[in-house]
Amino acid sequence: MSDTTNKSNQDSILKKPLSRRDVLRLAGTGGLGLLLGGGSIGGILAAQNKKKAVASPIDAAHTVPFYGQHQAGVVTPSQNFIYFASFDVTTKERNSLKKLFQAWTEASVAMTEGAMVGTDNHNLNLPPSDTGEAAGLTPARCTITFGAGPSLFDSRFGLQSKRPPNFKDLPAFSSEQLEPEWCGGDLVVQVCADDLQVAFHAIRNLVRIARGTAVLRWTQEGFQRTGQADPAAGTPRNLLGFKDGTGNPDVKDSKLMNNVVWAQSSDGASWMSGGTYMAVRRVRMRIEIWDRSSLRDQEATFGRYRDSGAPLGSKQEFDPVDLKSAGEDGKLHIPANSHMALTKGDGSVQLLRRSYSYSGGINLKTGQLDAGLLFISFQRDIKQFVTIQERLAKSDKLNEYTVHVGSAIFACFPGVSKGGYIGDTLL
Amino acid sequence: MSDTTNKSNQDSILKKPLSRRDVLRLAGTGGLGLLLGGGSIGGILAAQNKKKAVASPIDAAHTVPFYGQHQAGVVTPSQNFIYFASFDVTTKERNSLKKLFQAWTEASVAMTEGAMVGTDNHNLNLPPSDTGEAAGLTPARCTITFGAGPSLFDSRFGLQSKRPPNFKDLPAFSSEQLEPEWCGGDLVVQVCADDLQVAFHAIRNLVRIARGTAVLRWTQEGFQRTGQADPAAGTPRNLLGFKDGTGNPDVKDSKLMNNVVWAQSSDGASWMSGGTYMAVRRVRMRIEIWDRSSLRDQEATFGRYRDSGAPLGSKQEFDPVDLKSAGEDGKLHIPANSHMALTKGDGSVQLLRRSYSYSGGINLKTGQLDAGLLFISFQRDIKQFVTIQERLAKSDKLNEYTVHVGSAIFACFPGVSKGGYIGDTLL
Repeated sequence: MSDTTNKSNQDSILKKPLSRRDVLRLAGTGGLGLLLGGGSIGGILAAQNKKKAVASPIDAAHTVPFYGQHQAGVVTPSQNFIYFASFDVTTKERNSLKKLFQAWTEASVAMTEGAMVGTDNHNLNLPPSDTGEAAGLTPARCTITFGAGPSLFDSRFGLQSKRPPNFKDLPAFSSEQLEPEWCGGDLVVQVCADDLQVAFHAIRNLVRIARGTAVLRWTQEGFQRTGQADPAAGTPRNLLGFKDGTGNPDVKDSKLMNNVVWAQSSDGASWMSGGTYMAVRRVRMRIEIWDRSSLRDQEATFGRYRDSGAPLGSKQEFDPVDLKSAGEDGKLHIPANSHMALTKGDGSVQLLRRSYSYSGGINLKTGQLDAGLLFISFQRDIKQFVTIQERLAKSDKLNEYTVHVGSAIFACFPGVSKGGYIGDTLL
Repeated sequence: MSDTTNKSNQDSILKKPLSRRDVLRLAGTGGLGLLLGGGSIGGILAAQNKKKAVASPIDAAHTVPFYGQHQAGVVTPSQNFIYFASFDVTTKERNSLKKLFQAWTEASVAMTEGAMVGTDNHNLNLPPSDTGEAAGLTPARCTITFGAGPSLFDSRFGLQSKRPPNFKDLPAFSSEQLEPEWCGGDLVVQVCADDLQVAFHAIRNLVRIARGTAVLRWTQEGFQRTGQADPAAGTPRNLLGFKDGTGNPDVKDSKLMNNVVWAQSSDGASWMSGGTYMAVRRVRMRIEIWDRSSLRDQEATFGRYRDSGAPLGSKQEFDPVDLKSAGEDGKLHIPANSHMALTKGDGSVQLLRRSYSYSGGINLKTGQLDAGLLFISFQRDIKQFVTIQERLAKSDKLNEYTVHVGSAIFACFPGVSKGGYIGDTLL
């Protein structure tokens, strides 16, 4: 190849990063062939003009804005995939942490708009700044949500005084069997998208940007039923075959969200105002045991009918849940130790669940499929999660069929304004 | 719950399994509420009539027929997900193996049509025969492809004389670093679908059916860019950012497929006529090294431009590949040790690639993302794969960035006729 000079020129000409779709369109029209085939400067300019002619505005149908009062990926309607990543910070310099947050912000803005990361994507002498596997793909409603674990507030970065009230590692719960490889982390990055390749691309590029500053601690991919354009498919089912998420609070009710999900300035950590606290539990399902249980036991475990998702004793999925309703024999329709009854309790404590199923090959201990739920909830105060989880850990009938093997909590930053960066209210 | 009797009656009434979409429709209209809420027999019959009224024919847009001259999932246009599973047979009875194949066939027909597995899905006293997580979902173009590994032709089942010519474990290749947990297997089940939850559901139910007869040996999920309705997205990219699959033979050319992919009756194992041989390689990518390589090196490694996918020196992705074309300086455009040049060779040996990307959390050895390619190819004779892989193993420039850690081959059975079962020409 003898077009290095041309490529450098081209790079200085094309300062604005090409969107991933533009790259595709140029390739389709032959414009990119000119760009890449070592054509003359004239050819490159022609291609650039062609780019202007075909460049499209942001693909609104597939784009969730990165900037805003709150981070995206919390009340955003669930995308079909998650790529969850927990990081440990390796630098001891607060300024390096700030630079990481700034670089992550810049890359996240690009990726959530479907643009290439960075500008060095056509210089033959350099590693491309974008790893390329999402070229030509839409943003797929990609959201990237950032937060800090309790350990970030230790002495390393002088953030002790910023630790929010109640924001410390979770208490031990009676039935959990935590495995260290699925726990904790200084930082979290939750990528959600309707395309798993787009989600992978985002995490991979963020890991690459973090090199020297932070390293992966644990990751988990997850999915819900995908490729189902028919909205009648309704509430997704978990891998135990039951609808999951029916009882979630309404994300369109902003007053409710301020009450349940978003940290308020009066909550004791003003830098978290507009942020939210995330609880993550990796819940392994004992599917081989579940699969040997009768339908009656299964429905009694959840407190809902398997097919319709309706509360036991009711007819429709969204019928109001009456925990006191009983049959003619006086027996409660919804057993008191069912997952739904214990989750709901007296209804005074709520949280927003945003979970995904996972499946990760064979569990070497059991020889069975290792599958389960990456439980994620967002709440204004981590106490909300603790209150409900203590009830569940104590007597949930579902505990026969599940085991919590991973756990983490994070303070997810408030939203970012243009010109700002993630965590700028903290650092 | 006091409606056990009704449920049993209902089950005997509804002998034909409900399709997964029917279940959804009944739930939506309240019909299923009647079914499940413990209504009278009259109510059940009313619901059944409603079922008849709303039951839909097979969802052709999302259905790939299971029966046919060849198994589906070979020349079928690639779905977005794969769930690959290798099994070891634990029974020593040939008849148990036959029963497994028959039960797998029955379940596969149901699942690829979007029906529930089995008929015991509403009897409160029994574990449901379908695990339920795909209820309400379309078949998502699900295909389920079965085959036998070389080890099935040992002395256990008296199949020694049926072993096809050349069908023995692969020779060692110079650059591979195989790990036993990703190798081999008596049987293979390749599930592909446009919905990962549908694919998981299929594997899980087949594993469940196999209990006592066969156990999982290894599994791998994979994906390609998903949720991208725009066909302009074109050839999928691998996780190194390059288009992968451009040079595949045309699956619509049935003469070519008979020459390249489908075993012929004259090939020495008449029971395999219409079947095909599958080669599987789990190829880990050293993405951290790749990501530090210049664009020039990356393009020279594949022999194609990253953006357009065009052969080096050409303009368009599907331009003919001329391995002898050189620049003014006499240097070949496409390096002789590039992946494309070595794969193509003199063009006399072809195979059909049908690979997927995979990503499986953190590689504990490197702390990096464990990601790569689940390479799968189909060919009329496994020799085709060996010929090409020997060239690649020796001098492929891509070997700097990848390592083969898993390997298996399988004889994938001919297609199944109605009334038959997978492998019926063998057993």
